[in-house]
Amino acid sequence: MEKNMDIAVSVVMGSDSDYSVMEETVKILKTFHVSHEIFLTSAHRSPDRTSDFSRKAAERNVKVIIVGAGAAAHLAGVIASQTTLPVIGVPVDSTALNGLDALFSTVQMPGGIPVATMAIGKAGARNAALLAIRILSLTDAELHQRLTVYIDNMAHEVEKKHDDLILKSRL
Amino acid sequence: MEKNMDIAVSVVMGSDSDYSVMEETVKILKTFHVSHEIFLTSAHRSPDRTSDFSRKAAERNVKVIIVGAGAAAHLAGVIASQTTLPVIGVPVDSTALNGLDALFSTVQMPGGIPVATMAIGKAGARNAALLAIRILSLTDAELHQRLTVYIDNMAHEVEKKHDDLILKSRL
Amino acid sequence: MEKNMDIAVSVVMGSDSDYSVMEETVKILKTFHVSHEIFLTSAHRSPDRTSDFSRKAAERNVKVIIVGAGAAAHLAGVIASQTTLPVIGVPVDSTALNGLDALFSTVQMPGGIPVATMAIGKAGARNAALLAIRILSLTDAELHQRLTVYIDNMAHEVEKKHDDLILKSRL
Amino acid sequence: MEKNMDIAVSVVMGSDSDYSVMEETVKILKTFHVSHEIFLTSAHRSPDRTSDFSRKAAERNVKVIIVGAGAAAHLAGVIASQTTLPVIGVPVDSTALNGLDALFSTVQMPGGIPVATMAIGKAGARNAALLAIRILSLTDAELHQRLTVYIDNMAHEVEKKHDDLILKSRL
Amino acid sequence: MEKNMDIAVSVVMGSDSDYSVMEETVKILKTFHVSHEIFLTSAHRSPDRTSDFSRKAAERNVKVIIVGAGAAAHLAGVIASQTTLPVIGVPVDSTALNGLDALFSTVQMPGGIPVATMAIGKAGARNAALLAIRILSLTDAELHQRLTVYIDNMAHEVEKKHDDLILKSRL
Amino acid sequence: MEKNMDIAVSVVMGSDSDYSVMEETVKILKTFHVSHEIFLTSAHRSPDRTSDFSRKAAERNVKVIIVGAGAAAHLAGVIASQTTLPVIGVPVDSTALNGLDALFSTVQMPGGIPVATMAIGKAGARNAALLAIRILSLTDAELHQRLTVYIDNMAHEVEKKHDDLILKSRL
Amino acid sequence: MEKNMDIAVSVVMGSDSDYSVMEETVKILKTFHVSHEIFLTSAHRSPDRTSDFSRKAAERNVKVIIVGAGAAAHLAGVIASQTTLPVIGVPVDSTALNGLDALFSTVQMPGGIPVATMAIGKAGARNAALLAIRILSLTDAELHQRLTVYIDNMAHEVEKKHDDLILKSRL
Amino acid sequence: MEKNMDIAVSVVMGSDSDYSVMEETVKILKTFHVSHEIFLTSAHRSPDRTSDFSRKAAERNVKVIIVGAGAAAHLAGVIASQTTLPVIGVPVDSTALNGLDALFSTVQMPGGIPVATMAIGKAGARNAALLAIRILSLTDAELHQRLTVYIDNMAHEVEKKHDDLILKSRL
Repeated sequence: MEKNMDIAVSVVMGSDSDYSVMEETVKILKTFHVSHEIFLTSAHRSPDRTSDFSRKAAERNVKVIIVGAGAAAHLAGVIASQTTLPVIGVPVDSTALNGLDALFSTVQMPGGIPVATMAIGKAGARNAALLAIRILSLTDAELHQRLTVYIDNMAHEVEKKHDDLILKSRL
Repeated sequence: MEKNMDIAVSVVMGSDSDYSVMEETVKILKTFHVSHEIFLTSAHRSPDRTSDFSRKAAERNVKVIIVGAGAAAHLAGVIASQTTLPVIGVPVDSTALNGLDALFSTVQMPGGIPVATMAIGKAGARNAALLAIRILSLTDAELHQRLTVYIDNMAHEVEKKHDDLILKSRL
Repeated sequence: MEKNMDIAVSVVMGSDSDYSVMEETVKILKTFHVSHEIFLTSAHRSPDRTSDFSRKAAERNVKVIIVGAGAAAHLAGVIASQTTLPVIGVPVDSTALNGLDALFSTVQMPGGIPVATMAIGKAGARNAALLAIRILSLTDAELHQRLTVYIDNMAHEVEKKHDDLILKSRL
Repeated sequence: MEKNMDIAVSVVMGSDSDYSVMEETVKILKTFHVSHEIFLTSAHRSPDRTSDFSRKAAERNVKVIIVGAGAAAHLAGVIASQTTLPVIGVPVDSTALNGLDALFSTVQMPGGIPVATMAIGKAGARNAALLAIRILSLTDAELHQRLTVYIDNMAHEVEKKHDDLILKSRL
Repeated sequence: MEKNMDIAVSVVMGSDSDYSVMEETVKILKTFHVSHEIFLTSAHRSPDRTSDFSRKAAERNVKVIIVGAGAAAHLAGVIASQTTLPVIGVPVDSTALNGLDALFSTVQMPGGIPVATMAIGKAGARNAALLAIRILSLTDAELHQRLTVYIDNMAHEVEKKHDDLILKSRL
Repeated sequence: MEKNMDIAVSVVMGSDSDYSVMEETVKILKTFHVSHEIFLTSAHRSPDRTSDFSRKAAERNVKVIIVGAGAAAHLAGVIASQTTLPVIGVPVDSTALNGLDALFSTVQMPGGIPVATMAIGKAGARNAALLAIRILSLTDAELHQRLTVYIDNMAHEVEKKHDDLILKSRL
Repeated sequence: MEKNMDIAVSVVMGSDSDYSVMEETVKILKTFHVSHEIFLTSAHRSPDRTSDFSRKAAERNVKVIIVGAGAAAHLAGVIASQTTLPVIGVPVDSTALNGLDALFSTVQMPGGIPVATMAIGKAGARNAALLAIRILSLTDAELHQRLTVYIDNMAHEVEKKHDDLILKSRL
Repeated sequence: MEKNMDIAVSVVMGSDSDYSVMEETVKILKTFHVSHEIFLTSAHRSPDRTSDFSRKAAERNVKVIIVGAGAAAHLAGVIASQTTLPVIGVPVDSTALNGLDALFSTVQMPGGIPVATMAIGKAGARNAALLAIRILSLTDAELHQRLTVYIDNMAHEVEKKHDDLILKSRL
């Protein structure tokens, strides 16, 4: 936990092996110049550390918490139960069940404590950053402008990829 | 679409039969005095209406869009692709597949356009409202105060239900 | 939490609606004269209460904790992460996913913190009590004797039910 | 979108990575001398491009649209909602869920807008072309003749492969 | 099998109990004044009848075959293997597996013989008719006109249902 | 189809690629000196060949038919519907769905026509041979004797593997 | 276990509640005049009784064993491991998982010990009897004749049901 | 089966190929200096050996039995039905179904005979040892002390891995 600077987004993960997925979140946040931190804690192996992090996040001025976890992925729900900040969950595919266990453990939260669940794996990690940016954009016009450009660029990139595909298909 | 007043949260659904689920969203928003509207549109049966709604939501000062849909639930993703607002998806269980089709269609969004997916059905509908409130609370201290009280009340209610359960179990 | 007497088994559940399932656990414990308590707490709605319970269980001389929970059933794992006692989890079928979400959330615990997972629903609730009794029987000869009789009775009951079935099938 | 010639079949995909699957569609169409085009557009990243394509397809004399997409595969349904042409969907396996997400997102269309769904992956891509050919054959006797020969050849090929297999099994 | 009149669409089902689902197909065809017949045959219990039907359908001027079947739903695939007509399959939910068995048995056709698969149950039955109508509309301007009106009406009905819902939600 | 000799077991498969699995069936039949043939036919690509095979198998004195097929695996059911011989089905894992599609398509036969379904893949292929041998053993004492020895050997092999494992674990 | 008469088929089940499903097996066996017995035993609650039954079945001249069981349905596999007779398994839907647990526990037998698995529930129970009859018919010409008539009747019944359906659909 | 020394934990597996998973159990037991044995037996291929082992385990002073098995994993349930000791099951992923078959076959035990089920694969194998240690710790203060240290170390390791991750993410 960074102490001396404002961090808009905390990117939390339950295992260092989740970083290969959650790196996608970090890349997008960097692209958008959103201040962020990386934090490793386990719902089960370090419950005190998890509680401590969750309870202090808001007062540290974190705005959004993104959580990546696999298997019986309790981390996002456990953090969400100890903060009032919006929590975004990324199910990580790290067991034999292809991430379906992580998805169900993250998304099927009972009424009362929400976790904003993303797709399993890297697509979900990217979208977690983009959802955080949508939330922050509500009150940050400059960030909103970057988001608008990003979305326009995605549309343009489709056109470019179309042209490449046509060329490739003619080979 | 309401035209003349500020609406913080739009509660959109793909079919009037989804209202029995999405009513849970509305109840929570009312409890928290969050201004909201109900909007019915179908991704497939009324695509123009859906586009029109999505593209105008931000300029109407809507802050968060909550979308309930079942089956091949495209509505949340289709709306998210035409707005920069945060979009929350509630998979509705309306087919033989127990809502698993709606869950996969809502949560497995490819990278680029996020949908904050909730649990299938009423628990998800309640949490959709609570996630919207977490988002709005970032810049609304009064609402944040209500959320804090609500969360405290949930904990107290557990204690009360414990006492009732002990009595019941002794009968 | 009972304070003044020795309780061998704590039967914990995340919602009062889980009692219709977890009552099966209680019935078996009563049959075996195993001292027990019922405790209601939610991993998400009352995290402090859950932590407090988990951390004090061992010093209160509880030997085994049985936990019933549904949906994204984090309760058994969260308790197991804060005690060294054996924790038995009963997935409760309380959502559209037929308890598969509760099963995955309970059984797919990552390495480090085990939850002894039972079948979904009432059969699991019964077996949770019987597993606790197997554990306690390791050092309680009288209880072990009761277990042996119980197991013998199950075998005899099969024979009796066979006879009833033969009669019924001839009607 | 080709503008100056009659295109019987449009082969649309949501990502250039889908081409490794959808190439199977193109190969069959080539074999049958069916005029076709390849078009890349994303339901989510380029919604305007998708709408524009869908609404103009019929007037460009396209007869059948084949759509390959993965993950929360909305593309076929979104196109089908904006055209009266028959739309054939090919679920592409591009996530941890083995294409089950793409299958459910494509096939579980609510009543009103049909998508003719094929098997996940390359088998589905081949059959998409063959279904388009069955449709076009209703009014194209020459194409129908080619289809009849193709089906006969498949049966003959089974016999040939049988002979090869007998030889191989005797080695 | 009707012998003396032109039948555009054959609605085939594997069991008379499937009619409660397939009646939805018939209703839509009637609404659109599309000539059709109902035919009952089982892939497994009446294989000769099924072959005979399949092989003669084209020469009887049938244009599209719609097949509803449940369980290990082989009927659509078996018919498709003995005709060159487009075959549309409707998985019927008639077993403990919620129609997932019928869906997989219908949609996962190996390369060579396509079945245009619809959603499980009544939504799929309705869409089967609408897909047949899209196919027939390619060469029937009057039918195409009816389809256009139908699609417009669906969009208008959404607006009407929106108004009803607003009223209802205010009660 | 062999014409001039008695064949006790026909090993049928829908694609030559299934042979890598069905070879396990053949190996066991060879070990037991059970006369057998290999036959390649597709339910969908060669329906006449399949019918012809099925209808003549009994008169050719085949006693048991073993069928391996993948995807929407209709072959075992289609053969079973055209013979009175016992038909054993082996689901082959050949698609993105891990053989679950083949399993459901083989095992979920509606009442009237049974297929004796084995496990997905090689274990199922081995057991298909062993089930055929159990059936043939009912009236072949010599074969029954071989089966008894085989089963005894399996038990002995477990003991031997235990000893090897103990050694290995001590390294 | 009947001791004094020849019993061709043993119909075994793990719980008396399975009889509502397995009664379908008995009905078919009665229709075909196949001598049979009903036997209740549990793999888990009466393991000795199960072993005793399994080991003596062949010497009592039983030819085929049909086993219905639900949940973690071990009974068919456990019996098959202690007899050389063909064992047919019927998965019974008796838990929250819709019989999928019983299906996997019955069909996914590892190589060495086969269980001829039928569909989940009543359709499977009926087909279990019909598979036993196919097996017994190999050496019982009279029974084979009854089977042939039964199969012919099924085909005729389809025609009759077709006529009824046409009438019904015209109402 | 070791005869001359006290063994606290038996680690049983159904196939030598399961050892790559169950080795994780052994490693943890070694770390904790818990006396243990490895035992190979198959529920189906060596039923007598399995019965003999199960019935003698308690009198040999074994306290806990850990069982790893794949496919239709009956071994844990079969052992549990023949002992009063606590039995811990580890589903092994050894088939096309990703261990879901082993999970369902192990966890869905009907009421009467419990199996303490762990996660699929290596995480489950590790946790099986840790659950056995939690059970043994109830009456072994020294072992309990080691467990406490182990749990503390896991929390410390999270902190260390956090530091490593921060460094890595800055590269």
